[in-house]
Amino acid sequence: MASLKQFEPASGTRDFLAAEHERRERAFATIREVFGRYGFQPLQTPAFERLDVLTGKYGDEGDKLIFKILRRGEHEATGEADLALRYDLTVPLARAVAAYGSQLPSPYKRYAIAPVWRADRPGKGRFREFVQCDLDIVGSSSPLSDAEVVLALHDALDALGVPEFRFLLNSRHVLFGLLEAYNVPEDLGSGVLITLDKLDKLSPEAVVGELVASRGLSQEVAQGLVDDLTSPDAVERIRGELKSSEMGQAGLAEVDRLLELTKDAIPAERIGFTPNLVRGLDYYTGIIFEVVAPGMPGSIASGGRYDGLIARLGGKDSPACGGSLGIERILPLLEQADQDSYSQIDVAVTVMGEDLAADSFRMAAEIRRVGVRTGVYLGASGKFAKQMKWASDQGARFCVIYGKAECEAGTVTLRDMDSGEQVQVPLDQVAAELARRCAPSS
Amino acid sequence: MASLKQFEPASGTRDFLAAEHERRERAFATIREVFGRYGFQPLQTPAFERLDVLTGKYGDEGDKLIFKILRRGEHEATGEADLALRYDLTVPLARAVAAYGSQLPSPYKRYAIAPVWRADRPGKGRFREFVQCDLDIVGSSSPLSDAEVVLALHDALDALGVPEFRFLLNSRHVLFGLLEAYNVPEDLGSGVLITLDKLDKLSPEAVVGELVASRGLSQEVAQGLVDDLTSPDAVERIRGELKSSEMGQAGLAEVDRLLELTKDAIPAERIGFTPNLVRGLDYYTGIIFEVVAPGMPGSIASGGRYDGLIARLGGKDSPACGGSLGIERILPLLEQADQDSYSQIDVAVTVMGEDLAADSFRMAAEIRRVGVRTGVYLGASGKFAKQMKWASDQGARFCVIYGKAECEAGTVTLRDMDSGEQVQVPLDQVAAELARRCAPSS
Repeated sequence: MASLKQFEPASGTRDFLAAEHERRERAFATIREVFGRYGFQPLQTPAFERLDVLTGKYGDEGDKLIFKILRRGEHEATGEADLALRYDLTVPLARAVAAYGSQLPSPYKRYAIAPVWRADRPGKGRFREFVQCDLDIVGSSSPLSDAEVVLALHDALDALGVPEFRFLLNSRHVLFGLLEAYNVPEDLGSGVLITLDKLDKLSPEAVVGELVASRGLSQEVAQGLVDDLTSPDAVERIRGELKSSEMGQAGLAEVDRLLELTKDAIPAERIGFTPNLVRGLDYYTGIIFEVVAPGMPGSIASGGRYDGLIARLGGKDSPACGGSLGIERILPLLEQADQDSYSQIDVAVTVMGEDLAADSFRMAAEIRRVGVRTGVYLGASGKFAKQMKWASDQGARFCVIYGKAECEAGTVTLRDMDSGEQVQVPLDQVAAELARRCAPSS
Repeated sequence: MASLKQFEPASGTRDFLAAEHERRERAFATIREVFGRYGFQPLQTPAFERLDVLTGKYGDEGDKLIFKILRRGEHEATGEADLALRYDLTVPLARAVAAYGSQLPSPYKRYAIAPVWRADRPGKGRFREFVQCDLDIVGSSSPLSDAEVVLALHDALDALGVPEFRFLLNSRHVLFGLLEAYNVPEDLGSGVLITLDKLDKLSPEAVVGELVASRGLSQEVAQGLVDDLTSPDAVERIRGELKSSEMGQAGLAEVDRLLELTKDAIPAERIGFTPNLVRGLDYYTGIIFEVVAPGMPGSIASGGRYDGLIARLGGKDSPACGGSLGIERILPLLEQADQDSYSQIDVAVTVMGEDLAADSFRMAAEIRRVGVRTGVYLGASGKFAKQMKWASDQGARFCVIYGKAECEAGTVTLRDMDSGEQVQVPLDQVAAELARRCAPSS
C-alpha cells in the first residue's frame, strides 16, 4: 500500500485545490486590474532561461539556489546543466528589454505575476515555488515614475483589502549624504549601509560594534550614525545633518517630491520619510521604500529606483524604477476576511433513473445556456438522499428534481437548497426561472 | 556588442508581449468560463514533480523528453536529477487524486490550463514550453460523463469562435468487436490497432502490408479490415460486421447513446460516428473522440474514456474520462479574427512643464479612481508633438492637455484622438466627463 507521503507534491511546492486556487486568482485579478489602470502592461517570459542568462546575477548565495536543468539525450550523462528555472522576474525583464527594446513603448511600464523557483530550505511560509508580483518602469528618470510605482502598489494593497499598511520611504541619496556628512570614505559606503540595514534585527550596540570591527569606522562616527538613525526624532536630526551635503539635500528633495505627488491619494498615516530604511541590495540608486503591515514581520512590498541594473543584467543602460508585492506574504493577511466556502455550481440537476437521464441531461444543457453554472448527477445511485447530499456538497443554491411524477406532469420540482422551499415549474420554463433566480443582482 | 540571439528566450520557448499575452489570456478565460458552467473545478499543481512520479509513465520515447532538474548543493556534482518539469497534466491529476481523494467531490470534475515542458526538437508550431488545457471526470462510469466532456469541449470551441470543427466519434469496443468479428487473436489486438491508426497517414496498401508483415494477420483478414474502415459506407459495413460481436454491439450502443445525449446541443454536421478513428494510445477503454477543423492538419482536441489509467499512474482504481483542447493549435485558427491592435490606456495625460507635473499627476489619479485606464507622460521632453505621438502609440482614445493657458483658465483641453476634436472641460469635471465618455456602453 502506497503511503500518502508518496503522493505529496515535491518538497517546498504546493497543490492548490479549487477554493484556494480561486482565492489566489481573485487576488491576482485585482492586482492586474489596478496595474492595468495605470497603463502597465503584462510581460510573460518562459519558466526557464539559458543557464548563462541567470548565473552571476544573484551573488554567490543566490546562484546556489538556482534550479538547474540537466542536458538531454547523449549529453545527459555529462551531468551538466544548460538551462535553469527563473529565479526572479527582473532578469527576464532585462533580457526582454534587450531583445525587444525597439518594439516596446518608451518608457516601458510592465508588470508580471508569475511563479519563480528557488532551492531554499522549505519552511513555514517559505516555498521553492512561489509567485512574484512585480511592476517596473524602464526608460524614465522622472520622479513621476517613482510616484506612480508607489501609487500603483498602494492602490493594489488597498483593493486587496490589506487592513493596515504603511509605506516606509527613503532615498539612497539621503544615506549617501549622511555618510558624506560624517566624512565616511566613499569606498567604505556600501559596506557601512549593509551593516546599517541590520538595525531592524540587531541592537544598536551590536550594529555599532560591527561598523567598527568590520566596516572600518571610528567608534565616534559609528555611534553618531546609529544614534541619528535610531533617535525618536531621527527625521529632524537627519534633516539637520544633511544641511552640509549636496547629495543629502538632493535625497531629501526626492523624498519630499514623492510625498507631495502622492499626498492626495495616500493618507499621511500610510506613508512617511523613514531615514533608517536602507534596503540591503546595493543596486538601488534613488528612492527606496518598503511596506509593513501589522501581523506580518518584515515587509509585504518593496522597491525603488535602480538606474544601473538593467545594463548590469545585460540590457541597455536605462533609468528604471519598480516595486514588488510580496504576494505570498499578503495572501495570509487576507484569508481571515475571505472564508466563504467554495461553491462549484449554482444549480444541481438530479438523475432519478436511467430512463430519465437524457431529459435531465438536456435540461442541464439548457440551464447552462442561460449562463448558470449547472451540474448533473453523474453517480450510479438513484437514491434521492444521496443526490441531495451531492447537490449540497457542491454548494448548489437550487436543485432541479425530475422524477417519474414530474415527468408525467411535464414539470420539475425546484428546491431552494437554503430554505428547503419547493415549487413546481413547467419544463419549458425551468431555464428562464433559474436565470432569474441566479441573476447576480437578485 | 551583444548579438540579438543572446537575448532570445531559450530554444523552443517564447516570450509573450502584452498584445499576444492578453489574446491568449482571453481565450483561457473563455474556456474557464465554459468549464466552470459545467461544474468543473480548477486544480493547480507545481511546475515540477519528484522524478520518480514522472518516469516510466510516458513510454521510452516520452521519458527521453522529460526535463530533469539537477540535484543541488553538495549533490550537484553527482550529475543526478531528483526533480523534473511536468510533462503533462494527467500524471499530476492522478497524484492529486491519490493525495486528496477523500477531500475531493465525487465524481471529481477538474480542469487545468497550464504550461507543460517537453524536450522535443523545436519546430514550426512545436514548442518546449506549451499550454495544455485538460478536463477530466474521475470516479464516474456514467455515459452522461462522456457526453458532458464532449459537450463542454464543444461549447468551449464554439465560445472561442473556432470557425468550423467536427467531432469524430468512436468506441474502443467497436474496434475490439471488429477484431473479434475477424477472429483476430486477442494478444494481437493492440498491435493491430496501432497499425490501423496509421490509416490517416499511410496508403491502405501500406497499412495492409504492415498488418501482414509486422502484426501477424493473414492477407485476407488485413485486407478485409482495411476495406471495411476505408470504405465510403464504412459506418454501414461495420454496423453489419458487428452483428456477430457482443462487444461490438456494446460499442455501437455507447456511440449511439452519446449521439442521442448530445443531439440537441451539437448540430449533426459537427459530430459523427467515425469507425476508423483509433487513437494510438492504448489506455483508452471506451468512447474515444477527436476534433478536426479545416486549415489545421491533425486534431485540435481529443479524448475519451480511460478507466484503468488513474490506477496505472499511481492513483486509486477509478473510472475516468476526459479530453483536452490543443490550445496552441487552436489559437492560430482564431488569430485572423482577432487582429485588433493592443490598447494600453484609454486616457493619456500630458505633462507640459515641470511646474505643471504635479497637477497632471493628480488629475491622472482622479481619472483612474473612476475606473478609467490612464497614463501620464513620464518622458523628459515637454514638446507637444512628442507627447501626442506617445498618446497615440499607447492607443489612448482621449488625451488630456494641460498647459499654461489651461492652468490659468482652470480647465483642460480634452482631445478625441480619433476625430481630433477638442473641447474645454473645467478641472473639477475632467474625471466625470471621461468616465462618461469611456463607459463600456457608450
